[in-house]
Amino acid sequence: MSNYKEELLQHELTPETLEEYSEKVRRELKAFFEPEAIAVIGASRDVNAPGWVIFKNLLENKEKGWLKADVYGVNIKGGELFGQPLYRSILDVPSDVDHAVIVIPAKYVPGAMEECGKKGVKVASIISAGFSEIGNVELEKRVVEVARKYGIRIIGPNGLGVFDAYSGVDTMFLPYCKPLNGKELLATPRPKKGYIMFISQSGALGVSVLDYMYGEGIGVSKFISYGNKADVDEVDMLLYALKDETVRVVMIYLEGLKGDGRPLVKIGKEFSKHKPIVILKGGRTKAGARATMSHTASLAGNVKIYQVAFETMGAIMADDLVEFLDVTKALAFQPPARGRNIAIVTNGGGAGILATDKAEKIGLNVIPTPENLLAKLKKAQEEGKIPPVATFSNPIDLSGSASNESYIAAIEAVMENDDIHAVLIIGLHHVPLLTSSFVDEIAQIIKKYKKPVVAVDIGGADMANWVRDRFDYHGIPAYPTPERGITALKALVEYGEWLKKEGVLENYLQKWQPPTSL
Amino acid sequence: MSNYKEELLQHELTPETLEEYSEKVRRELKAFFEPEAIAVIGASRDVNAPGWVIFKNLLENKEKGWLKADVYGVNIKGGELFGQPLYRSILDVPSDVDHAVIVIPAKYVPGAMEECGKKGVKVASIISAGFSEIGNVELEKRVVEVARKYGIRIIGPNGLGVFDAYSGVDTMFLPYCKPLNGKELLATPRPKKGYIMFISQSGALGVSVLDYMYGEGIGVSKFISYGNKADVDEVDMLLYALKDETVRVVMIYLEGLKGDGRPLVKIGKEFSKHKPIVILKGGRTKAGARATMSHTASLAGNVKIYQVAFETMGAIMADDLVEFLDVTKALAFQPPARGRNIAIVTNGGGAGILATDKAEKIGLNVIPTPENLLAKLKKAQEEGKIPPVATFSNPIDLSGSASNESYIAAIEAVMENDDIHAVLIIGLHHVPLLTSSFVDEIAQIIKKYKKPVVAVDIGGADMANWVRDRFDYHGIPAYPTPERGITALKALVEYGEWLKKEGVLENYLQKWQPPTSL
Repeated sequence: MSNYKEELLQHELTPETLEEYSEKVRRELKAFFEPEAIAVIGASRDVNAPGWVIFKNLLENKEKGWLKADVYGVNIKGGELFGQPLYRSILDVPSDVDHAVIVIPAKYVPGAMEECGKKGVKVASIISAGFSEIGNVELEKRVVEVARKYGIRIIGPNGLGVFDAYSGVDTMFLPYCKPLNGKELLATPRPKKGYIMFISQSGALGVSVLDYMYGEGIGVSKFISYGNKADVDEVDMLLYALKDETVRVVMIYLEGLKGDGRPLVKIGKEFSKHKPIVILKGGRTKAGARATMSHTASLAGNVKIYQVAFETMGAIMADDLVEFLDVTKALAFQPPARGRNIAIVTNGGGAGILATDKAEKIGLNVIPTPENLLAKLKKAQEEGKIPPVATFSNPIDLSGSASNESYIAAIEAVMENDDIHAVLIIGLHHVPLLTSSFVDEIAQIIKKYKKPVVAVDIGGADMANWVRDRFDYHGIPAYPTPERGITALKALVEYGEWLKKEGVLENYLQKWQPPTSL
Repeated sequence: MSNYKEELLQHELTPETLEEYSEKVRRELKAFFEPEAIAVIGASRDVNAPGWVIFKNLLENKEKGWLKADVYGVNIKGGELFGQPLYRSILDVPSDVDHAVIVIPAKYVPGAMEECGKKGVKVASIISAGFSEIGNVELEKRVVEVARKYGIRIIGPNGLGVFDAYSGVDTMFLPYCKPLNGKELLATPRPKKGYIMFISQSGALGVSVLDYMYGEGIGVSKFISYGNKADVDEVDMLLYALKDETVRVVMIYLEGLKGDGRPLVKIGKEFSKHKPIVILKGGRTKAGARATMSHTASLAGNVKIYQVAFETMGAIMADDLVEFLDVTKALAFQPPARGRNIAIVTNGGGAGILATDKAEKIGLNVIPTPENLLAKLKKAQEEGKIPPVATFSNPIDLSGSASNESYIAAIEAVMENDDIHAVLIIGLHHVPLLTSSFVDEIAQIIKKYKKPVVAVDIGGADMANWVRDRFDYHGIPAYPTPERGITALKALVEYGEWLKKEGVLENYLQKWQPPTSL
């Protein structure tokens, strides 16, 4: 552990120093996400104990071949669990351990950390509660001192730790299933592999959001619940994420910063020139701020100050939980936009109107169709590709008689038009002439351009779900209502504007590559 | 058909005259929803024709015993379809017909209507397009003249007609399934039975919303897609809904009114004293209004004028599609609130904070916990029912250690407190001590009061879905994010305020009964 967060305030951040910090942090934190060996200190035979769940999940992940690291159980009472010996101390573990998961009563944590230090442990996920969050500030300080002495980095205490969808590291003590009428129901699912790093100041909210992501089919790279953030915080994680190829976007649920916010703003601003950050801030109102005080003892602080800080960082601010995920998904999949002019291509007039209302309300320009675009659309109509009843005034309403061919013609025309900076495609699957292959067909066109596109199909039955999944598969984020699609598009516009202001948009777009399907 | 809409502007609307109008309209429109016999004029052997789908669906509904009415096919060419004879004219049908579904080319519709008149048909769902929407105003006028002559009421033309989840009437020409890779996927589902009348000016949007409702598990009583509304409009449907026991709330997607809006405002205002109306207006912005012009030829008109009209009517205005459904579901299930003070009961601090932020933002009062409520909560804490770490400053955060008993104690306390007018319950199922029976347990308490309650559980896996479905089952509308729950609660507060302003709130609440589970 180092004082680099204070140090980095002293001088300017160049691409070179940023790289240096990032590499240093990646070395220090690597064992959280790609450990060689994990020891669960507090592996317990009590099926209700967090240590039982964590040990079990890690062993199961190991058995599935998902987790490569070796897993060891440590319990002061010794014995055996799941056919594995429980060592009385981490010092008894017969091989090296680089990641310790600590789930024992708070007062024993400093001692356990001392042993971790002697063992050569590099990182500790401290799940145990009972530290500063209930006033035991001194105890937490002692833990940090031991960690400093041995150079151990800490996530926690009083958090859920880490979940990594790639490496199978999972320190979350919530079991996958809960009983219901004699059956086991999936209650705390882990999302599939994806491109999102999710940092949550609230463990419970974090788990809920993972469950929500699972339902929406959104993948995750890493989830970090740092609890009291005695050590590892947002700054560390951004530096870690910078060079992490599985992370294309970082989403943060934040109630308040501890101490000085300047390192975050400084690192965040450089980070955002490479990858986007999305923040949902809890406690944006007076009553909300009062509640953050009793929840995470966070001074939610002056909302304006946070807002200015986030804007400086180039972070996209989400207004609610739905937007948090919608916007993150869009930024993970699509490039930023070069401007505010959008085209809406639809086969449902009503849906197009709702999208237009939302776009205008939040400041996107649904511009009258440019002349050269209009000419192309009319030509396609004359050639019989677009139905005679279609109207082109933006929304470009291909009408309920639109076929796959109509979409191909319209999407080609809007994608190649430079006055259109972003596109919302509404493809309601209900009409007879539109067949499911239209998604694959227009995706091929969209992939040729670095212009953001977002898709909408409305509905909750099999076909609607299939259409949206298929768009997602192609890296075109899909949403179940027109307004949610527009909100997602707005984030791509905002991010583009920030990058432009910083003078790096064209360079960013040049380097930008679509995600590989996972 | 009568000119009662002009007539009702002449004099004051008393409870007696409202009743009279309602009974008259119910007699006139009854055959749309509860026909004795339906004839499909344009039943076609072409599997791609709307008339094929409609005839097939009606016959299948009849076979299932869902539809009680007899079903006849009419086709000028005669012949046979699905083992049924196709009559060359409705006049050849061997028994009485009260509901004609017309799906033939526009130019033949006046003639078909003439025959309907001679046959004694009472109502016609005219699905055929090609009337005023493409400039054929005269043709539409002729159809209306024939209808007037014979006293036939019309839904349409150029709409999808009617779907009734109770009687099995279904004139929607969109087949349930569409093919995908050799399989048939559910593409245009019909929602289950419920308490909502849904009127949509856009057929395509209507169908999409039905699909969305299906996915959200929201039931419907009737869906009406009136297309060009040559005859039956919102006024008729409100008068029909007034005495319809399966309708607890009316939701309307509207792009623009045709002609005089005063009858709607006048009837709407009286209707809202009995049942709530929710409106989503397409074309609330300049670009949106431009789009309604090319879509339904609606003059979206001055947004302010519509807003004032809807406010006068006591209608709840939805801001987007998600809100449209969320708010309608809340109003179908829960009573209006007596005021703006809400309590938030949660087991997740972060989720409680997000709810608080949203509530403050949209003008609900998350009041500091009243003294007498605080005393009750502290007592329950002393008795060990609520965990020691719980905090009571509203949000009432029972903490992750909350059990069923904690919820019971807290809900009892907030329900009986007169300073709390509405309650948001956040019950995150992920924590170990909360078992699934907590929903049933607190539902029993909630049912004792006429105070609105809305529930939230976050997540998309089995258990989250079960928890929300179970709340819904008990008539407590449940939502997947805190902010969506708050928006729903807001509608119950707004509706209560309007009823209070009209001086009818207490009377309304006295008569209010929770819905029966379907």
